[in-house]
Amino acid sequence: MALPPEFHAMARRVNNWGRWGGDDQLGTLNLITDEVVRAAAAGVRGGRRIPLALPLRADGVQTGLIPGRINPVHTMTQINEEVFGPGAVAVSDDTVCLGLQTATHWDALAHVSHSGLLYNGRPATTVTASGAAHGGIDRVPPLVSRGVLLDVARAKGVDRLPGGHPVVPADLDEAAEFGRVVPGPGDIVLVRTGQLRVYRAGDRAGYAFPAPGLSVRTPEWFHARDIAAVAVDTLALEIVPPEIDGLWLPVHALHLVEMGMLQGQNWDLEELSGVCAEEGRYGFLLCATPEPFAGATGAPVAPVALF
Amino acid sequence: MALPPEFHAMARRVNNWGRWGGDDQLGTLNLITDEVVRAAAAGVRGGRRIPLALPLRADGVQTGLIPGRINPVHTMTQINEEVFGPGAVAVSDDTVCLGLQTATHWDALAHVSHSGLLYNGRPATTVTASGAAHGGIDRVPPLVSRGVLLDVARAKGVDRLPGGHPVVPADLDEAAEFGRVVPGPGDIVLVRTGQLRVYRAGDRAGYAFPAPGLSVRTPEWFHARDIAAVAVDTLALEIVPPEIDGLWLPVHALHLVEMGMLQGQNWDLEELSGVCAEEGRYGFLLCATPEPFAGATGAPVAPVALF
Amino acid sequence: MALPPEFHAMARRVNNWGRWGGDDQLGTLNLITDEVVRAAAAGVRGGRRIPLALPLRADGVQTGLIPGRINPVHTMTQINEEVFGPGAVAVSDDTVCLGLQTATHWDALAHVSHSGLLYNGRPATTVTASGAAHGGIDRVPPLVSRGVLLDVARAKGVDRLPGGHPVVPADLDEAAEFGRVVPGPGDIVLVRTGQLRVYRAGDRAGYAFPAPGLSVRTPEWFHARDIAAVAVDTLALEIVPPEIDGLWLPVHALHLVEMGMLQGQNWDLEELSGVCAEEGRYGFLLCATPEPFAGATGAPVAPVALF
Amino acid sequence: MALPPEFHAMARRVNNWGRWGGDDQLGTLNLITDEVVRAAAAGVRGGRRIPLALPLRADGVQTGLIPGRINPVHTMTQINEEVFGPGAVAVSDDTVCLGLQTATHWDALAHVSHSGLLYNGRPATTVTASGAAHGGIDRVPPLVSRGVLLDVARAKGVDRLPGGHPVVPADLDEAAEFGRVVPGPGDIVLVRTGQLRVYRAGDRAGYAFPAPGLSVRTPEWFHARDIAAVAVDTLALEIVPPEIDGLWLPVHALHLVEMGMLQGQNWDLEELSGVCAEEGRYGFLLCATPEPFAGATGAPVAPVALF
Repeated sequence: MALPPEFHAMARRVNNWGRWGGDDQLGTLNLITDEVVRAAAAGVRGGRRIPLALPLRADGVQTGLIPGRINPVHTMTQINEEVFGPGAVAVSDDTVCLGLQTATHWDALAHVSHSGLLYNGRPATTVTASGAAHGGIDRVPPLVSRGVLLDVARAKGVDRLPGGHPVVPADLDEAAEFGRVVPGPGDIVLVRTGQLRVYRAGDRAGYAFPAPGLSVRTPEWFHARDIAAVAVDTLALEIVPPEIDGLWLPVHALHLVEMGMLQGQNWDLEELSGVCAEEGRYGFLLCATPEPFAGATGAPVAPVALF
Repeated sequence: MALPPEFHAMARRVNNWGRWGGDDQLGTLNLITDEVVRAAAAGVRGGRRIPLALPLRADGVQTGLIPGRINPVHTMTQINEEVFGPGAVAVSDDTVCLGLQTATHWDALAHVSHSGLLYNGRPATTVTASGAAHGGIDRVPPLVSRGVLLDVARAKGVDRLPGGHPVVPADLDEAAEFGRVVPGPGDIVLVRTGQLRVYRAGDRAGYAFPAPGLSVRTPEWFHARDIAAVAVDTLALEIVPPEIDGLWLPVHALHLVEMGMLQGQNWDLEELSGVCAEEGRYGFLLCATPEPFAGATGAPVAPVALF
Repeated sequence: MALPPEFHAMARRVNNWGRWGGDDQLGTLNLITDEVVRAAAAGVRGGRRIPLALPLRADGVQTGLIPGRINPVHTMTQINEEVFGPGAVAVSDDTVCLGLQTATHWDALAHVSHSGLLYNGRPATTVTASGAAHGGIDRVPPLVSRGVLLDVARAKGVDRLPGGHPVVPADLDEAAEFGRVVPGPGDIVLVRTGQLRVYRAGDRAGYAFPAPGLSVRTPEWFHARDIAAVAVDTLALEIVPPEIDGLWLPVHALHLVEMGMLQGQNWDLEELSGVCAEEGRYGFLLCATPEPFAGATGAPVAPVALF
Repeated sequence: MALPPEFHAMARRVNNWGRWGGDDQLGTLNLITDEVVRAAAAGVRGGRRIPLALPLRADGVQTGLIPGRINPVHTMTQINEEVFGPGAVAVSDDTVCLGLQTATHWDALAHVSHSGLLYNGRPATTVTASGAAHGGIDRVPPLVSRGVLLDVARAKGVDRLPGGHPVVPADLDEAAEFGRVVPGPGDIVLVRTGQLRVYRAGDRAGYAFPAPGLSVRTPEWFHARDIAAVAVDTLALEIVPPEIDGLWLPVHALHLVEMGMLQGQNWDLEELSGVCAEEGRYGFLLCATPEPFAGATGAPVAPVALF
């Protein structure tokens, strides 16, 4: 089934094609200027560092539902091997296989296409078995900016949003007001639903579904504020099943294809939630550069928030 | 052959076992205090971000010399797949296999042992096929601190040090003076030899060997200054063949086992070298959190220097 | 808990250490003589070929229960790539990652140890991160012999044995009599329980457990008849939980360590069961050479029965 | 550049599309009838088994030239792990990653396409990131037939053919006459050049190139005799650079796309060569079923010749 007219109307309203030139592969990361970074760094007062990545483990968040998206398989190739003879210094080495969108990650712009096109009107056929010739994760420059936590769950006074709750613009406004923070140009917005607690409690299937997620109405909210990137604490990012019948993954398509905006999933925002509440501020310096896998449509990231 | 008395003498002089308690797994990362980070962040003036990671590619720096240490193999599991029916949003997904010490990486403390022991006197046998129970890379907290570039090559007015040149303490002093920077407690020191230019010129075998490298005399220099971690732009980190006959990997053993100090290899310091010269300063905020692979003896990192 | 005296008594009764010399790594495969193979080939009358391997798929029999034993992850590295220019012949290539004991496979003798020893008294420590120095699957010579199907389920007139049913010597005798076949020296015995039907019906967890399996009393039965190798249509091979309290994997230990006898799991004996019944004979030429992965403790095999 | 008229003329002469029906995915394997197999089994007189697979090792024949075609990376996931408590039976387990066309293997019919088509006129687009929907290696039935060694090198009285020597029909005739064997319908022909000796001598680059290889004129020879499959002891199978200017991989295209004939590479025919000479016969029973990786465009095989 073709994408419905509603989708195309939204797409037109948030579209950034050509905004930074016809060859651009950065999209909204263009909004992260030196000035944005400088101001964010100036906000670091205590020096506290908060990790936002899940450990990369065989019992990670993937359940096998998505073909090929395997949790990390970590294997040893050397264990205390005395490579240079008995009694010498001994070496341990290891290897890993993993799906690139498996754990705490960024989706690259090339991760989805619609109507045969990627961000900036590039043909989807530029993604081949050799990887993404355009919009791969290795195009992302060092990713540091102001991070803003929109703690939707805490703003509503709950541990986590109920499964199936679509996070709508009013929820984002409420969380911004709760945190007394004004998301603006170049910011990286982190939306907390509390859903990661389901995984932490040992229920991987329940973490995946039913989960809260971004509403199809949020991309326009991000677009209006010139947000640079968005990350969440859920597997699917957006609300599933979709709000418009038959229109699956509309938020992915609007973020990645239309806006050229990076999006992240499976971010661990639990400790950060407590720290923001404690520190009384919801803005911080965020370091979140993805691993630069050449031609990849996503990559793991080990983000850190600095206060 | 057993480790020679000279090694044990040096080991005693730099040993940090018990310094942060018998259960400590952080080693010299304990030296990165909130205050160190706060001061480093305060040094960010312009907002410029410099990437220090090599792209993760099949034609990376590994040549097959080290068993199991494969360059990243990136493969697609979905290419513009219309998962939800014809005409729907289409998804691309991918998978990767790689050696964890393959590209720009940190060695975890558990990466080497000697005399049957790891850092803090833990038995080497705690590294098993399930990974490192102690001193794995997932023990590393969010890694942000002041970075200091010791540009040994530029200080000597050369593009790169000759293959076989051991970087000795006098070279480090010279580079610090050249950069008008005083490495101190909690700093992450980056030592540039220029060797990466050999790889960039297409000579992978020559990049590996003969290369310049840290002298066995440098760990004491780092120890005296309470440096938190050290990274270099070579494959082997230290000088090969070793300076003391038959004593292979002494720097690894002193850093990781005795001092409990993280060390990094294959860092791309070329652009950074130019920027430091241009900015006229060799200190910056460094964000360099490794990917938290559970029980791994090393991990890729995408470090960023902020000016 | 140490292995109980009962185990050691059985171990003594089936032990083959030294029987084929102190350096032997073949174990009971020594029993497959040219004469055995010649006779088995002479039994081929019609030329019919029956496959006994499960397809190697991402939705294979593994459920994630056993760490690291992943179902095959198949990914493309080239898809109709016109390597030599537009319009040229186009190439597709692929890559796979899998646990070596994941699907239809043979366990190598080095797959288990007990009391610190492998088959023929080799130290278990000869298995390292570099693989098995002794008793690896690459030590197995071309594996062809007479195959004998003991169709325990069909002999009892059931589709499959109930979960938890231990296959005891009387069951093997009954199946041999039912098939009018006399298992003897050098034969490869295939024991059918019908359990694979549970997997085929879509219940992977139920395939793994509760399953029927070989009783701890069967190794003596195989030993008495000088059987060369045994394979079954279950995941665990032996009955679980074990018949002797606290004695897990006794059949593995008796087969692999004491007897030096290869054992196979997840063999698809369903079609074979029908063909044997139809042909009225339960002996055939069996070709079942494992993939010779160097130092591996097991390997996939694509066995074929010839009638 | 488009394929030249010469190619299309040859293609017409060997084309088998529709010969076994429009839905056929077996191609010339249809020629292996029960009668062919029965006769081949009847030829087994002594019971001797000769292995034809290279060990699967990290230092296998691949040099990194072909992207993604990695030699096997074998890693341990458990080493003598006492899964069920101290003193219990201990388990070792392992994992492997490899390119499917890396070592001794069969190419599936879907391995190459030309002019947008696969064997039997299927669209090349049926090969996707999910694998080959048509002509994948898992379509191959149990593969047993008469094997025939055409020992071109020995027939010419040399250890190996010179690099660059194209094996032409006259060479095949000469080898058949030398071996007093008449290749016919359903046979699997093994062509020995002796090139594997270059790899054995430690020269991997030299094994790959310059090598002898099948001439573009040989597919017609195989077609005329209704050969079922062909395997060789080289990396590229066919002569490189090609005999017709700009026409790369014509033999691949004729075998796989036009004839629907399996082809194999990197087969170890050295021991077999000696045995055939010793036994005085060049026909034998060949068991060579590929590992059934679902949707794969090739797969490892551990072939065995029986005398």
